[in-house]
Amino acid sequence: MKITNKDILDMQDRYRAAFVNGLLGPKGVHLLGTRSQDGIDNLSIVSSATHFGANPAIIGVLFRPDSVRRDSLEKMLVTNVFTLNTVTKNIFKQSHQTSARYDREISEFDKVSLTSQSIHDFEAPFVKESFMKVGLSYLEHHEMKVNSTVLVLGRVELVEIPDGVVLEDGAINLNNYPSVVVQGLDSYYERGEFLGKLPYAKP
Amino acid sequence: MKITNKDILDMQDRYRAAFVNGLLGPKGVHLLGTRSQDGIDNLSIVSSATHFGANPAIIGVLFRPDSVRRDSLEKMLVTNVFTLNTVTKNIFKQSHQTSARYDREISEFDKVSLTSQSIHDFEAPFVKESFMKVGLSYLEHHEMKVNSTVLVLGRVELVEIPDGVVLEDGAINLNNYPSVVVQGLDSYYERGEFLGKLPYAKP
Repeated sequence: MKITNKDILDMQDRYRAAFVNGLLGPKGVHLLGTRSQDGIDNLSIVSSATHFGANPAIIGVLFRPDSVRRDSLEKMLVTNVFTLNTVTKNIFKQSHQTSARYDREISEFDKVSLTSQSIHDFEAPFVKESFMKVGLSYLEHHEMKVNSTVLVLGRVELVEIPDGVVLEDGAINLNNYPSVVVQGLDSYYERGEFLGKLPYAKP
Repeated sequence: MKITNKDILDMQDRYRAAFVNGLLGPKGVHLLGTRSQDGIDNLSIVSSATHFGANPAIIGVLFRPDSVRRDSLEKMLVTNVFTLNTVTKNIFKQSHQTSARYDREISEFDKVSLTSQSIHDFEAPFVKESFMKVGLSYLEHHEMKVNSTVLVLGRVELVEIPDGVVLEDGAINLNNYPSVVVQGLDSYYERGEFLGKLPYAKP
């Protein structure tokens, strides 16, 4: 079936949100950890974490206009650092629950029963239950004209991953670790069977 | 194991690229279709397509500095439109092969044996073999200061998806469609078992 921009404009708001969010198929999903000026550890689920470059090592993540007003970006800019923690099969329900709009003085860690982990003196919380944790420092941000969404780029400062997952060529082998992907706003899938590691493509 | 920014800086280039690309775990993967001024249909694999908003319906995708120099962004700006096509299990090898650096007058469709599909009078090619195809028109772009990567936002103009996959609430159910995800630069996985569709989270 074909759907045009006009059809999308005619959709009811929640229906449209679900539909458009689903158009890209399965996406990676992460928990974004920040710490407020008052020392409260916050956590929100995101499906926008994107690799922007390896040298320097840069990852970008979106802060939606509503969360900007609420607290995530503001909090992040207090300590200048944030974390991204890969969502795993054992915690996908708690992870999803972090999308609820808790009051700003409440720590989502407490509400959803995930464990805030400190690593070295990094001033943002990692998620203990995740097996792949990345700590980043603020680099630059860009506000989208069309809808005021803010893209924040961070530089990778600290990584915690299981021993033995880095292959000879630097690739990270997660075959034995149960990460998940999300379809649209709310449908979760296991990461499935390994299909293959393909060679560097040449013409 | 812990890895610091200093450790990453010390890595050999290709090793670093593989390592940093793998830090986010499994990612969605798409074929980006563009058409040049000369009418050549081009295709490149990307793992950066990101939902930026539903109203209006906005998707962003990265153009790496090297591909900017080469052709993708330049070509896209000629027709002002591009397509994103979800990579499926039956075409992941051909899709990966589009990352080879073919000369600019060559169509990757021909080289990797994928089929260029026209829909209505949309001036960028869709991938016939993909089951979820999105046509977008250029909206705005942002160049990253740190590494000159360019983020391009497009507005969703046209969608082709299978009949019967849109649920009552607007969500797209892909349980019967074999999409894949990519880990790092080159490791492909099936999208695995459905774990659940979770309710809208409330405090």
